[in-house]
Amino acid sequence: MSTSFTLAQVAAWVDGTVRGSADTRIAGVSGIEDAGPDEITWLADASYFPRLSKSRAGAVLVPSDCGPTPMSAILCKRPSVAVIAVFERFAPPVPSPPPGVHPTACVAESARLGKDVAVGPHVVIGERAIIGERTILDANVFVGDDTTIGADCRLWPGVVVRERCELGDRVILHANTTIGADGFGYEFVDGRHVKIPQIGTVIIEADVEIGSGCSVDRAKFGATRIGAGTKIDNLVQVAHNVRIGPGCILISQCGIAGSARLGRGVVLGGKVGIGDHVELGNGVQVAACSCVSKNFPAGTRAVGLPAVDHETWIRERSKIRRLPQMAEQLKDLTRRVDRLESTADH
Amino acid sequence: MSTSFTLAQVAAWVDGTVRGSADTRIAGVSGIEDAGPDEITWLADASYFPRLSKSRAGAVLVPSDCGPTPMSAILCKRPSVAVIAVFERFAPPVPSPPPGVHPTACVAESARLGKDVAVGPHVVIGERAIIGERTILDANVFVGDDTTIGADCRLWPGVVVRERCELGDRVILHANTTIGADGFGYEFVDGRHVKIPQIGTVIIEADVEIGSGCSVDRAKFGATRIGAGTKIDNLVQVAHNVRIGPGCILISQCGIAGSARLGRGVVLGGKVGIGDHVELGNGVQVAACSCVSKNFPAGTRAVGLPAVDHETWIRERSKIRRLPQMAEQLKDLTRRVDRLESTADH
Amino acid sequence: MSTSFTLAQVAAWVDGTVRGSADTRIAGVSGIEDAGPDEITWLADASYFPRLSKSRAGAVLVPSDCGPTPMSAILCKRPSVAVIAVFERFAPPVPSPPPGVHPTACVAESARLGKDVAVGPHVVIGERAIIGERTILDANVFVGDDTTIGADCRLWPGVVVRERCELGDRVILHANTTIGADGFGYEFVDGRHVKIPQIGTVIIEADVEIGSGCSVDRAKFGATRIGAGTKIDNLVQVAHNVRIGPGCILISQCGIAGSARLGRGVVLGGKVGIGDHVELGNGVQVAACSCVSKNFPAGTRAVGLPAVDHETWIRERSKIRRLPQMAEQLKDLTRRVDRLESTADH
Repeated sequence: MSTSFTLAQVAAWVDGTVRGSADTRIAGVSGIEDAGPDEITWLADASYFPRLSKSRAGAVLVPSDCGPTPMSAILCKRPSVAVIAVFERFAPPVPSPPPGVHPTACVAESARLGKDVAVGPHVVIGERAIIGERTILDANVFVGDDTTIGADCRLWPGVVVRERCELGDRVILHANTTIGADGFGYEFVDGRHVKIPQIGTVIIEADVEIGSGCSVDRAKFGATRIGAGTKIDNLVQVAHNVRIGPGCILISQCGIAGSARLGRGVVLGGKVGIGDHVELGNGVQVAACSCVSKNFPAGTRAVGLPAVDHETWIRERSKIRRLPQMAEQLKDLTRRVDRLESTADH
Repeated sequence: MSTSFTLAQVAAWVDGTVRGSADTRIAGVSGIEDAGPDEITWLADASYFPRLSKSRAGAVLVPSDCGPTPMSAILCKRPSVAVIAVFERFAPPVPSPPPGVHPTACVAESARLGKDVAVGPHVVIGERAIIGERTILDANVFVGDDTTIGADCRLWPGVVVRERCELGDRVILHANTTIGADGFGYEFVDGRHVKIPQIGTVIIEADVEIGSGCSVDRAKFGATRIGAGTKIDNLVQVAHNVRIGPGCILISQCGIAGSARLGRGVVLGGKVGIGDHVELGNGVQVAACSCVSKNFPAGTRAVGLPAVDHETWIRERSKIRRLPQMAEQLKDLTRRVDRLESTADH
Repeated sequence: MSTSFTLAQVAAWVDGTVRGSADTRIAGVSGIEDAGPDEITWLADASYFPRLSKSRAGAVLVPSDCGPTPMSAILCKRPSVAVIAVFERFAPPVPSPPPGVHPTACVAESARLGKDVAVGPHVVIGERAIIGERTILDANVFVGDDTTIGADCRLWPGVVVRERCELGDRVILHANTTIGADGFGYEFVDGRHVKIPQIGTVIIEADVEIGSGCSVDRAKFGATRIGAGTKIDNLVQVAHNVRIGPGCILISQCGIAGSARLGRGVVLGGKVGIGDHVELGNGVQVAACSCVSKNFPAGTRAVGLPAVDHETWIRERSKIRRLPQMAEQLKDLTRRVDRLESTADH
């Protein structure tokens, strides 16, 4: 981390233009409040602009039309995108087991490992499993029989992928996540719950990332499917036969019940629950902590418990907030009608 | 999976009667929409009947009194139960470590393993642990000192069962689940939280199945107990000293706080929270995403945040939905009373 | 557990005074309803006093000013604190791997282990990691490169602490918990979610305890921080760049979104969700199942979805409960105004 770069060099990484001292030396990147004089920060949003006056940062990434800043700046198109390249340059290397098979790993003879696959300590790889090139299986990972994993994947320690699952290329699974456990299915017969065999599998398409401590169950039949480029946060539950479209975002602690279907680009806030067999159209957005028990068409913003569309929810909430006032009005009206009646009587 | 059977053979498995071609060959089982001409499907519910007209399935399991179907049928009592036998016949074999102890496993000398126990790679079994006949401990499972596990159990990779716990026969624990971690208990003394030793244990009775990524804490004293035949989905929290009756169903991401008691056959929807010391009678059903902070007697259907009985909830919800209309009525009434008053004055 | 002590001996442990028979022999400790004649129980709260009449306990810990009890008693200041010493005496020893490195563990040569560190089977310790004196790493624990762990810590089986994290002294991490996975951060560029490198780390201060199955993500930059003495229950999510103050209590299944800040002594009930960038002042208490999307100042009690202060919530709830009555009043008023108008017309 002792390496530093001139602001001109940093500007070249992000295809930007220096305003101020191009010789300023930059040794790292940090947030507006935390960055020091040898670090660069970025303006994620115009609303953060006033905070720059108190920042000790040596430089800042700003949009091309940004006004004067207290420190040198790099003008660029989208600072929050540009900063990714800066992060990548300053990121400490992410450690991983070296290519090859660690002597403590147990790899079935019938498994096929691509070029430069890295298999860490105590990894277990089952019969006929296929691991794509350059994929990294970190310590204590378990890959079941007949499971296929694409190229350039990364499975962090303690990940379990059971038998017959399929992972595309560049899939990332964070630590202690479980893929392919039995779906939750029983029939109630003669006073007890009889287990329904879960003979399906899980298909995770390319470029999916799944957080730590998640559970993605195998299908009763066919496949539970997660679409390409979908990103899933920690501690999320995906039940059997769920189908999640491509490019979705599922924030931490969401739960998707059996056979639910999410279209393309659906966004679920933290702790959202989706009921079984519910269908959400493309681009549906559900607010954090909502519980969805019915279908919503493409583009809906849903919120609440049970979830309704955003406009309905806002209307209900405002009425609920006005309840004390309504009660007051009702009391007042009653008094006035009492008086009118007593006048009318006499 | 290349094996196929005649419809007559399949009918024999489920104690049913063929209607149509008994020679139709069946090579698999799938859902109404997914099944192909060499697969059988089933009518889970009369409401699915119209979908049969579009199904490509080669045959269908239907109730004995079902009308004509577009494909050959097997008449039977309960198709959704009958299909379990069909699933079992077509299920690919579930892989498991072979009986015996894998050379990389660490088994304490004082542990006692029953006949045909299978101990997978990197498993750790503590002092004086007892493992019943034919039980399968998959890769990386940890069994603590003095823990007893019954016969025919299956612990999937990464499961941790700490010291002094007891599991009955035929218990299934899915991957990365933790049994017997310390309960969450502290006393606030002199400005800091002092840990209360959790000296109890966990008892899991026969035929319990627990999903992946769950936490069942050991008791402060005595035992946290899960009753026979109870089925628990993924990512569920069971706190110290909880007692769950037999035959319960707990859907994913439920949480049961300390010392709560659930009777027999209680059903909790997904993401339900049960407060500490709450008692739920036999057969109580709680709707998904509800938060229960008081006791409910046997048979109650509870819902909401905080949960109330279903009838109360329906009434409240309908009133809330009528709020905009009530506000309108109130405005209208106010106007009319204004007018009446002005008339009365003059 | 066959050892027993006189009540006089037990009184000495807790700095209390015997009332009744000082010779009563005590062989264990349990709850009021479960304790037998050779066990002691305690009065956690004055409200439990009536239950003593049905208890079979041989003795009870009570506050100094407590009235007569059906069994011998020890008078002490705070029974629920005093009982901790009793629990500790009767607690069966907690098993752990012996000091030293298990032959199946993989410890990098550059790692530095303090005196009497215990490294269990199949543990993996990365390059330049530092483990403090007497710390216990149980089976299958993973410690990443450059991570520092203090003295007297306990990491239970299956815990993953990734690279460059810092744990203080006496930190306890329960089984299958993950520290330092990548924070959940993407920018949407040209129709896909581009991963933002998460180059920060996690700092867990002294005396923190974290339950099983939790996820604490590393920061985008800087550090996700958990303050000294904070206690976290099972299945809790702590996102990147969250800062939790000292002495907090987070009950099971809470989730704290990115960059949220919790002050000192904050208490979150079970399943609470805290939105991103939300700030909670010292001593804020949030009721179970609440969803917090705005800041609350020190000392607030918040509740609801979305969370409001407790007084507002109580008021709203009571009005909602009165809705059926309000609807009735409205109907009645309308009838009366109808009549008045018809009178006025004629």
